[in-house]
Amino acid sequence: MDETFPAANRIRIVLVGTQHPGNIGSAARAMKTMGLHRLVLVAPERFPHPETFALAAGAGDLLDAAQVHGALGDAVADCGLVIGCTARARRIALDEFPPPEAASKLLGEAMSGIETALVFGRERTGLDNVELQLCHAAVTIPANPAYSSLNLAAAVQVLAYEVRMAALRNDAPVPARADVPPDDLPASHAEMEGFFAQLADTLDAIDFHKGRTPEAAMHKLRRVFLRATPDAREVRLLRGVLADAQRMARLAGERQGPAS
Amino acid sequence: MDETFPAANRIRIVLVGTQHPGNIGSAARAMKTMGLHRLVLVAPERFPHPETFALAAGAGDLLDAAQVHGALGDAVADCGLVIGCTARARRIALDEFPPPEAASKLLGEAMSGIETALVFGRERTGLDNVELQLCHAAVTIPANPAYSSLNLAAAVQVLAYEVRMAALRNDAPVPARADVPPDDLPASHAEMEGFFAQLADTLDAIDFHKGRTPEAAMHKLRRVFLRATPDAREVRLLRGVLADAQRMARLAGERQGPAS
Repeated sequence: MDETFPAANRIRIVLVGTQHPGNIGSAARAMKTMGLHRLVLVAPERFPHPETFALAAGAGDLLDAAQVHGALGDAVADCGLVIGCTARARRIALDEFPPPEAASKLLGEAMSGIETALVFGRERTGLDNVELQLCHAAVTIPANPAYSSLNLAAAVQVLAYEVRMAALRNDAPVPARADVPPDDLPASHAEMEGFFAQLADTLDAIDFHKGRTPEAAMHKLRRVFLRATPDAREVRLLRGVLADAQRMARLAGERQGPAS
Repeated sequence: MDETFPAANRIRIVLVGTQHPGNIGSAARAMKTMGLHRLVLVAPERFPHPETFALAAGAGDLLDAAQVHGALGDAVADCGLVIGCTARARRIALDEFPPPEAASKLLGEAMSGIETALVFGRERTGLDNVELQLCHAAVTIPANPAYSSLNLAAAVQVLAYEVRMAALRNDAPVPARADVPPDDLPASHAEMEGFFAQLADTLDAIDFHKGRTPEAAMHKLRRVFLRATPDAREVRLLRGVLADAQRMARLAGERQGPAS
């Protein structure tokens, strides 16, 4: 169970007329990875079945707890929001939402105490018209028009993922910057300027400019390092590298003697 | 091919060290449903394999066209943006993006003409640290902390879906790069690796490590420079600085005499 996602208690995944036992197991696994746990089966062709449990991997608990009904109406009787997943909703007169919006609707209702269902049809033929009539709305995963055959578990994975993303968007705690160690914060302006001053000194020491004006190179180098937004620890590391380059330049200079 | 999604031509999905042949087929199917078609395999345990083609269903064309490499570096050599998929990025020092942001980044770069890669590791162990070092950033699918084991094809499905959603939103930040000279494009993987090799040599030459193992510092420095995504000209500038530091170190070494 995923303690961070209590709305999952009021979101059920309903699989209607599933033909291949393995797909039920894969769907359970997909659900559980996203923190969903309420699986309802409507007239599965074969259940329970060893292949279902094999493909569920560590999600066998969802199969053990799964409810089985004979008809979709029974499976969603207590639901205030039922959304059916369909490849094309045009032939039916249903509002059709993209996955993020459908997930937000499910989550919102679930968070307010309403029972909700996300319904998936048969592998080959989907939901029939009578079943779609039981849905408040449809959700369609945008797919390649030339090849739109997501398998059942893949469709469950995508929509369960969107439900989880909706939950994270809603519930994500605002990162408290006060708790972040200072070394992990982006280096301050002053720290960056200290680094750039040492970089400029180092370029002089290693004779990088060779008579050219230093401004152009420093300009470009500042851009690279500012873009990286290093943290304080990384700036210290970079300055350590510069210090050693400066030390080598001093040694080399001593070799050439005081006249140079 | 999905005519509505031309950026797909510059987004490759790279599967590293895949253990189960069936997963390659399922991943190909997941890609094709979302309009992605460029599959690259790095050291797959078994390929080609009948099970791979069986599970690909109608996506066998992606398998026929798949490139196979021995190492990740070769698979992404021409890429300006490489994002690795990882279950937890905390142990590594990489910027970590949620899937929508990672997808927007890939799409934006691809739309502007840059070759991009989305990299998936082995089923059990993911990407190793050396492979993660080749990535500019990481993407993590937010999963149930108590059960985070998305299978490989499920992870490909979710991220390919997000790339498609980004394309449909068309909200990817597209740097106007059509007329941009190659020097202003992000440095390729190979150019970055050339720079890092010279950086490592330079750290040795200036005796930066002083007996410590070099890996930790290089790790952190790679992160800073990959995050900056320097262009080709900036990489040449940085290498010029390194060359002068190396020259100074040689001079200093000569001063200390051949015995040192």
